[in-house]
Order: sequence, then C-alpha cells, then structure tokens
Amino acid sequence: MNKIIITFLFFAILPLKAQKKDSGYPITPVPFTSVKITDSFWGQRLKASREKTIPLAFSKCEETGRYENFVKAANPSSEYKVGGLSFDDTDVYKTIEGASYSMQTYPDKKLDKYIDSVLTIVAAAQEEDGYLYTSRTMNPEHPHEWSGSKRWEKVEELSHEFYNLGHMLEGAIAHYQATGKRNFLDIAIKYADCVDREIGDAPGKQIKVPGHQIAEMALAKLYVLTGEQKYLDLAKFFLDERGYTSRTDEYSQAHKPVIEQDEAVGHAVRAVYMYSGMADVAALTGDSAYIKAIDKIWENVVSKKLYITGGIGARHEGEAFGENYELPNLTAYNETCAAIGNVYWNHRMFLLHGDAKYYDVVERTLYNGLISGVALDGGTFFYPNPLESDGEYQFNQGACERKPWFGCACCPSNLSRFIPSLPGYVYAVKDNSVYVNLFMGNTSEVDVEGKKVTIKQTTGYPWKGDVQIEVNPKGKKDMALRIRIPGWAQNQVLPGDLYSFTDNVLSNHSVKVNGISFKSKLEKGYFVIDRTWEKGDQVEVHFNMEPRVITANEKVEADKGRISFERGPIVYCAEWPDNDFEISSVLIPANPQVEVVDNPELLNGIKELKTKGQSIFINKDGLLDTKNVELTLIPYYSWLHRGSGDMMVWLPQNVSAVKPVAE
Amino acid sequence: MNKIIITFLFFAILPLKAQKKDSGYPITPVPFTSVKITDSFWGQRLKASREKTIPLAFSKCEETGRYENFVKAANPSSEYKVGGLSFDDTDVYKTIEGASYSMQTYPDKKLDKYIDSVLTIVAAAQEEDGYLYTSRTMNPEHPHEWSGSKRWEKVEELSHEFYNLGHMLEGAIAHYQATGKRNFLDIAIKYADCVDREIGDAPGKQIKVPGHQIAEMALAKLYVLTGEQKYLDLAKFFLDERGYTSRTDEYSQAHKPVIEQDEAVGHAVRAVYMYSGMADVAALTGDSAYIKAIDKIWENVVSKKLYITGGIGARHEGEAFGENYELPNLTAYNETCAAIGNVYWNHRMFLLHGDAKYYDVVERTLYNGLISGVALDGGTFFYPNPLESDGEYQFNQGACERKPWFGCACCPSNLSRFIPSLPGYVYAVKDNSVYVNLFMGNTSEVDVEGKKVTIKQTTGYPWKGDVQIEVNPKGKKDMALRIRIPGWAQNQVLPGDLYSFTDNVLSNHSVKVNGISFKSKLEKGYFVIDRTWEKGDQVEVHFNMEPRVITANEKVEADKGRISFERGPIVYCAEWPDNDFEISSVLIPANPQVEVVDNPELLNGIKELKTKGQSIFINKDGLLDTKNVELTLIPYYSWLHRGSGDMMVWLPQNVSAVKPVAE
Repeated sequence: MNKIIITFLFFAILPLKAQKKDSGYPITPVPFTSVKITDSFWGQRLKASREKTIPLAFSKCEETGRYENFVKAANPSSEYKVGGLSFDDTDVYKTIEGASYSMQTYPDKKLDKYIDSVLTIVAAAQEEDGYLYTSRTMNPEHPHEWSGSKRWEKVEELSHEFYNLGHMLEGAIAHYQATGKRNFLDIAIKYADCVDREIGDAPGKQIKVPGHQIAEMALAKLYVLTGEQKYLDLAKFFLDERGYTSRTDEYSQAHKPVIEQDEAVGHAVRAVYMYSGMADVAALTGDSAYIKAIDKIWENVVSKKLYITGGIGARHEGEAFGENYELPNLTAYNETCAAIGNVYWNHRMFLLHGDAKYYDVVERTLYNGLISGVALDGGTFFYPNPLESDGEYQFNQGACERKPWFGCACCPSNLSRFIPSLPGYVYAVKDNSVYVNLFMGNTSEVDVEGKKVTIKQTTGYPWKGDVQIEVNPKGKKDMALRIRIPGWAQNQVLPGDLYSFTDNVLSNHSVKVNGISFKSKLEKGYFVIDRTWEKGDQVEVHFNMEPRVITANEKVEADKGRISFERGPIVYCAEWPDNDFEISSVLIPANPQVEVVDNPELLNGIKELKTKGQSIFINKDGLLDTKNVELTLIPYYSWLHRGSGDMMVWLPQNVSAVKPVAE
Repeated sequence: MNKIIITFLFFAILPLKAQKKDSGYPITPVPFTSVKITDSFWGQRLKASREKTIPLAFSKCEETGRYENFVKAANPSSEYKVGGLSFDDTDVYKTIEGASYSMQTYPDKKLDKYIDSVLTIVAAAQEEDGYLYTSRTMNPEHPHEWSGSKRWEKVEELSHEFYNLGHMLEGAIAHYQATGKRNFLDIAIKYADCVDREIGDAPGKQIKVPGHQIAEMALAKLYVLTGEQKYLDLAKFFLDERGYTSRTDEYSQAHKPVIEQDEAVGHAVRAVYMYSGMADVAALTGDSAYIKAIDKIWENVVSKKLYITGGIGARHEGEAFGENYELPNLTAYNETCAAIGNVYWNHRMFLLHGDAKYYDVVERTLYNGLISGVALDGGTFFYPNPLESDGEYQFNQGACERKPWFGCACCPSNLSRFIPSLPGYVYAVKDNSVYVNLFMGNTSEVDVEGKKVTIKQTTGYPWKGDVQIEVNPKGKKDMALRIRIPGWAQNQVLPGDLYSFTDNVLSNHSVKVNGISFKSKLEKGYFVIDRTWEKGDQVEVHFNMEPRVITANEKVEADKGRISFERGPIVYCAEWPDNDFEISSVLIPANPQVEVVDNPELLNGIKELKTKGQSIFINKDGLLDTKNVELTLIPYYSWLHRGSGDMMVWLPQNVSAVKPVAE
C-alpha cells in the first residue's frame, strides 16, 4: 500500500515535459501496482519468477557477455569481434522490466541497487546523440553481421535497432513506474528522440520501419506517459509505412498495408506485437481502420489458427503462422513469446471492445500454452510449446527437455517480464463498472469513479470452481460488478467453431450475492451485478468443474479422430510417467467416463484426470490386439518435468488416429 | 486366310487418288487382319463383343433415334426438335467400326447387309458439299443447342463437328479395310474434304480446332490410306493451332501450344486422343517437338496420374486428370473411353520407341481398368471404373450397377469398336525383328522382310504363366523374336515409383528354345532370341505367377496404409459376395500369405486369391475388437456382376486405414 502511494507521488512530481495522457481505451485496467496476489496457484508462479527466473536471467546476461557488450560499447574498438545476436541487449532490458514489476510487490533493495549498477553500464554505452545499440557502437567499422555498415541500413531486415528501442522503452517505463527512478527512462527517451530525429517522412529523415515490431506499442506507451505527440506519430508512422518500404514480405507482416490485412501470417511474435501496437494507436487516435483490420485478423486467429492451449504460430520454419487449420501437434511451434504477445493483444482487444471473449483467449493461453513455457520452479524454459512429443523430436532449440537458457534468449527474458506483470490483468474499470476478468486470490484497490473500493478474491481456482468476492467500498457505492463467465462455462471452447465440446452442460455456473441466488443475463459474456454495495458484501460464483471432452473442427487434419480433455481452464495431456503403455497407441471409447483425482504431491499439486481406454498393439502373431488400460492425464502446462518421453494432448478416439505398437 | 488375301486384293485395286503411305512409325504393327485369336480368356471377350455388345449397340442406335436422326437430316424440317447429344452420330460410326473388325474374323453376311442399309441412310443425311452433322442438317434454323447457328461456329466448344469427322473416318477406314467396300469411306472422305475446304489458315478459310480431339489421328490414318497430303496437313493444323484460337483452357488441352505441354491435364479422353494424334503426326512428319512433349507427358502420367488398374482421369468433375498423386478410389472416374484412348496412345508410343514399358501400360489397362468397363457377357457397361465401392455411391452415371446404355453412350460404342480390334495389338515387326507384345492363344501370319512366318501362341495366360510360341517360317529364316517380359516379371509394377512390390522375386521369368534353356539380356524390356528359325521351332516362356503385394507411393493420400494384390497381369479386389464382413473393416497383417484357388465356375472361370486378415469392429461395450477372417479376392475386372455392395482394390494394412464397424 505504501508503495502504491509512493508511486503515485512520483507520477505527480516528476518533471516530464508534457502531461501524462489517457491511454485512450474505453476501459482502464487496474494496474499491477494495485493488485496484491494471494493466490496459491499463481503465488507459486510469481515466487518462482522472483526467486528463480529473474536472478537466473540476470546471471545469464552476465555470464553470456550481454553486460560486457555495453561495457565494450562504452569503449569502442575496431578489435572487438561482435558476436551473439543483434538483439542481445533486449534481454537485459526485459529482465529489468520483470524485476521492476516484481519489486513493486516485493521491494528488494539489493536488486534495486543491482539494476542501478546495470543501468550505469547501459548509460555508458549510449552514444552522445542517444543511439544505443551495442552491436554497432562497440565496433562501428565491423559491427554485427546483421547490422549493416550504417545506422538503420538493415533495420528492416535483421538489425533490430527499433526492436531494441521497443524493449528498452517497455523496460524503462516499467522501471520508472515501479521505482519512480528516471535513470532507465532517460536513457530510453534519449534513444527514442534519436530515432525520431532520424526516422520519418520529413525532409532529411529516412523512411524505415522495424524489421521486428514492438516499438509501436512501446512508443504509444511513452506517449501516454509523457504526452509527447511525436512518439505517437512515430508509432503510427511505423505502422502506416509498413508494406510501402523495402520490406514487403509476409514474414514480417509487410505484404500489405496494415489496414488491409485480414489474416494472421508470418512470424507470430512480430504479428501479435504489431496487432497490439495497432490497438494502442487506434485507441489513442480513434482510427477505425486499424480496429477493423485487427478485428478481422482476430476472427481469423481464433477460428482457424489457435491451438487449444492458446498457442499460436504453427510452423518452426519462420516461427510463423501456418495456413488456416494447419495445426500440427508434434511439430507445433507455439513460441512462448508468441503466447505472451497473444495475451498483450487480446488484453488490448478487451480494453477496446469490453467483450469477455478476448479474455477467453487470455485465460486459455495463460493457464496452458504460456506457463507451459517455464518450469514449475522457474528455472528452465521452452522456446516452442508442442502439443505432442515422442520423446525424441528435438523441438526445444535442439533439445527434448526444458533448458535453462537459449542462444536466442527471447523466451526466458520475456517470461521474466510477463509473469510478474500478471496482477495487471485481473481487473479493469469503466465508469461505475468493475470487470473481474481472472480468478485468483488477491486483494486489490480499485478506483471506481474516484471512490476507492477494496476487492478481495478467495478461490481454489483453477482446481476448484468456487470464487468468493468480497466487495468493500468506503461507505455505500452504486457499482456494476461484471464477472466474466468463461466461454467454457457457456459450452463454448472458444469463439468460433474451431473446437467444440462433445456435450453441453445445462447448468454450468451460478452466482449468489450475500448467500442469495442472483440471476443475470450475460452482457458481452459478463454476469452483471449492478447494485448498491456495502462493506462486506459477499459474492459467490460457482462454475461446474466436470471434465469436458473436446473435438476439433474436421478441417484440422492433425486432430482428426482425436479428442482432448479439459477441466475448468486447464487443458490436459497424457504423459509417459503416468502411463505404462505408449500414449500414441491408446484408443479412447466413445463417451469416455472421466474421474478427477487429487494429487497434491505431484507437480506442485494437481488434479489428475483418469479415463478408461485400450492400448492397441500388434501381437506376436502379427495381429492387431487390444489391452484395457487406464489413462492418466495431467495439466498440459506441467509436462516434461520428469524426463523426456511421449506426451499427447489430442488423443485417438478413432482407430484411424492410433499408432499400434509391437508387443 | 481367304479373307486376308481378298482384303489385300482390294487394297491393290481400289482407285484411291494417291498412293497409300507408310505410317511413318519405325515399328509396324501386325494388323488385326493377320491375327486369329484362339484364346480362352480373350475368346470369351471377343465372342461377347460379337454376339452381345455390337448387336446391342446397333439396336440401341435404332431405339434411341440415332438412325432416325440421319433420316431426318435427309429430309430437313424446321419442325424437328433436335434433342440428344450433338455427337450421337458417332455411336453409329463406332459400332460399324467394331462390327467391321469383327466381320474380318467372323464373316457375317447378314451383318454386312445391315451395315450397308445403315450406311444408305448415313449417306442420305450428307449435305451436297459433304457436311455431315445431323444435329444441324435436320433443322438448320434450330439446330442442336450446342451447335451454334452456323457451321463450325461452336466447334471449339460443344458442337463436335470435327469429333464426328474423326469417328466417321475411323469407322469408315476400318469398314473399308475389313470389307473392301467404299460406301462408308466415300462418305467420310467427302466430309473430310468439306472440312478441309472450309478450315485452315489459307485465305477464306476459318481457323478452328476441335473442341474434342480425335480428328487428328483419324486424318493421319486417312493420309496413310490415301496418300493425300492435305489430310496430314489438316491433322497438323488442328494440333498446331491449339492454344492459339478462342479455345485456351486446360479442360481441352488448349492452355498451351501442344509442344509446350508437359503434364496431363483436363478431360482425359480428349487428352489421350490428342497425344495419339501427336504421335501419328510426329511419325509421319518426323517432328521431334511433338515427341518431346508426349514423352514428358507420358512420364507424368505413369509416375503420378495412373491408377494401378491402368485407369486415368481421377475426377468426375470435367472427366479430368487430377493433380499429381490425386488418385482417390471411391470417387475415381477412370472413364472406360479414357482407358481405351490410353491403349491407343501407349501403342503408338511403343511404335515410336520400341520399348516394352509402353506395353506394360497397355497390358495393365487391358486386363484391368478397360475390360472392367464391360460385363463378362458384353451386355452392360461402366462409364467410370472406380477402385472402391460402398455399394451406395452412384458412380455409374447415377447408378451403382452395370448399365446397358447411357444417354451419352461413348463408352459402350467405344468398347464395340475396341474389343474386336484387339488382335491388332499382339505383334509388331521391324526389319527382321518380331515383337511379341501380348500373350494370348492365336495363330498369325507375320510378314518379316517379305517372308511369311506363321506364329502360333498357346497359353493359359493370364491364369497360367506358361506361353508356348511355335515359329513356322517358310524354310529357314534369320529372325529376332523379341518377347516382351512384363514389368511385373521384372519386379517393377510400372515404370517410375508410383507403385512398388513389397518384395522382389529373384527368378521370375525363364525361356527355353526347343526345350533348352536360353539366356538373353533384355533389350528395352524384350527377351531377344536372334537365330535362324526353322519350321516347328518351339519357344517356351515361363513367368512366375506368385501373387504379389503392392504399395503406392506415399504421396498418394488415398492409398496410405493400404496394399493391393496382383497376380500376373491381373489386379485383384475384394468384393462383398465373397466375404461375410465389411471389406473396409479388414486389416491385413504384414507379410500376408496368399493362396491361389481355382474357381472355374465363378465369373467365367477365375483364380481367386485368399489371405488371412482381421475384421476390426466396435463391440457392444464400445471397445475395439477383432475377428480373424479369411479374405477372398477376385480379379478387379469381374466385380459388380452379383449385385452392389462393397468392393476395394486398396486394402488396409495399417490400422489407420481401417473403418471399424459396429458389432
């Protein structure tokens, strides 16, 4: 609480050049600074992030020479051999960003000091005019092979100068908001000003767009923070010039002007970062053409290109979206960064439209294809997140195991910054409405029309379907509490017909207010309790947590004849340690009966699902034979913590999908 | 024998305008007039054709008003409503063609007289200047809706005026060769002259190409018969203008100039008729660009677009070739006419190149996908020839049964003309080489370098693998007997890698001359016995007739996880009357053991194959279960003689291909 007030104070007194602007979105998220997570499920994740992921990322930045790059850039030499990747600087920025969110809730003087020392060497690497890109600065004569001989020369290809700007701004703004200190923000603004001076369509400037998007949303954020129009203009310039410069490929979404795009194509991370930037700029400028485009692209993704786990980007090649319905399981790419970017984008779509369907994507991604990317202890990572493993296919950057770091370390450092920011996704406010978007134990301060309301959630979600919400306004308050009823609790896996439940549940959610049953028609997916609230008012939400069976649209070749299992927001998979037969040999009968078994000891505590099936094999006589088996399923996010072996999310229900094994 | 001599005499004395030309092919087929079939297998087919198919076709021409069309055209009236199809005339021509071949071997005065009477009304329908197309002539003001208001106006679309010319010439030349009479030939030449006067690139002529090819090869044949250069020029004109006139679609192979084509596309019958015409014109003109094109197209067909039955044209839509490897089974089109055209084309490819591989296609087509199109008794027909049936899919022009006639009767009338012409495909001659291309009992007179050699084949082929060839020259004769060793007897299903045997047989053919084992390297697929022959020399050829298992290239989606069975030249299928379980539920183990069982009573006498398998089903508890079964297979050509039900050529060997049935 103290911390929050202090931050507010900093906001008020810092001598920013212009006035802070509204984000422009009709709905305002309750910031991470106001939400204190008390949840068991997410508490573990936040702890792992704080105690393991962030320290690990900082130590990797150190031991892999990422800090040294800044030191070298401060003392350039034509002797330096510039190696690594041209965006290695960003891992430093991203980890500082994550550490900043984390320190907001868990102040850590030592960490704060450590970051200051890192920022000292970052500042030293900045050229006089603000340019900050160690890949060139440390040896301007022989810069990184991707960087071109001159500034910006290859920024539309692999030079990443604008990508570095984007992450620098994201990190600096978070650091400023969390700590109130300007030491990072000043560096970032100086670099942003440098880019702004040299890039644009005014005479003497160069027309260039980012090869890898992110600067768009970062510049919009800087505009909101500073009120400086030029940053918003630059963000919009980066979007509007796309498709008109030398970069005109699908890979980086430059095949068409952004407002003409209607299908998600190319590199998935670049794509969702761009759509997020489009949402930000649209919110700030009211540009409906952007919104029309991202609405269409969103429909395309959720109805044709989204994995059941929330993963996006089907192809290893180009880390890219596939064709419509191209959703292979073993070779699914589903980069962890793309899952994070997809949360950014869908969060913004919600802020634009106020519809719960966007949060269905956020929730599905969060509980499944995003946290799958980081081990339970926060110490190892996935780059891709496939939905199937044979224990051999080397999906994870040449490995079939969780790895502590990668040559291209975007995913670990993105997790470093995303996980601690999670509190910022729970609530949002519009006028007298408070949106309850995620279910996790927390105590939060929400500003509703200038009045402070404390909201306290208590829940065993995602394992249990009961959520208690205590509403504590100061005095009485007329207020509409809008509780998201997840799509899965409305018999819809996701918007569109990409996936379906095999059965409909008649009564799958109920709400009580102060112990009395409450009815409401859903508005855009929200259960609305519009009343005068008083201190201690209790809302009890109940979701039916019966396991459900899912089938994919028949156009998804990879899921033909297969089913998957889900319970609440959790997608399940079958993994080898829990099953003494080859997973791919299993055949599940029609209408499977599923039992839920509590296993508090396993994988930080999970609920397993158990169902009866058959293992299909070729017997010694060369004939097809069957054996009755019990299939055990675990949450998808928790796979590959016990050594490599087979795993499947989509399990054969039709014999055509079975791979019989030899006896 | 008498007949042959008489025909030779007619040839010599008939006052044709110019001299008969050589066909231009390096190899000369021994004509049907010199080959007397004594075979049991083909004897049945020839008898059925003579006694059932041809009389049926004539009676259908009568009862469906095809003759009446000629009568009406002889007395035009604006009252006539012109119905039917604009190429109905050709069924009359084609049946006369078949009857002519048949009468050559089995003189039939009554039939001869009947044909003369038909030709009288055909002649009466011819317009003064030679134009003969009842669809217009009978009511020039309101001709057939496909015919256009003026001659040739829609000949590139559906008017079929040149298609009618083609079939007229084919029929007339056969009739002239078989009977020595000119009453049909004169009509046809008069029509050809009419077309030649009005079509071409000289001033005053119209530039038009046939919508449906066939005139090209027919005109080449007329040139060979008459020596008149203009017919060859017109044939070449029809080929060379293709792709340059108003017709420029893939459907009729007009998407590119013919010499630039390298893939078989569009309507399959049109395609192979055109490739045949290109071969004929190339042989006569030495045009290597034509040969280069048809060589490429041939490679494309055999390696990517040919069914195991020899069928071509995968798609019902457009009666067309599909994409490479698009070879569905249930919905396979495989028009009977296309199989016949494919024999025409491959026969010509052999005459050009002298390679046995072309006869591998001829033989495979003949014994499987061609004769499947006509019932054993010659009385009912298939238009398409699918490789799978569920007993319900109405593949045969709206039926799932053999039908006695069709609205579009091209297939029955094409069978009427093709089957009796078969003797012309057995032997060929080049210098002192005699090619033995097909194995069937026959006694033939072959002219080798001016010397008459009688060749007598005795064989139980295709059921038995022994072929006796008795060579009887007059006196001694140096001669190379070139005996085709079928690809299947060299461990190759077809040229290319579209299909493979699952095992290789070490010794699968052997040859003895006068009882003594004879060795020869194969030359272009031929076993060469080059020696001085004397009367009564005996050659014994033996082929290993063990049943073989075939797999398709993995790019053929429809055959994935499936195998087919073959014995000698015969492709087998499993059909419902012989199996008391759903064929599609069967699973065949790896390395199936196959038993050959003689069944002289069934389907005119066949050898069945029997192998052990499992029927896969879902039992009453909803679980997958298996039942051991014996699978009986019959020759593919003999299916659907006992009522409709399921049939499959490609049988599941991998469980992924099985369709389990409910118990």
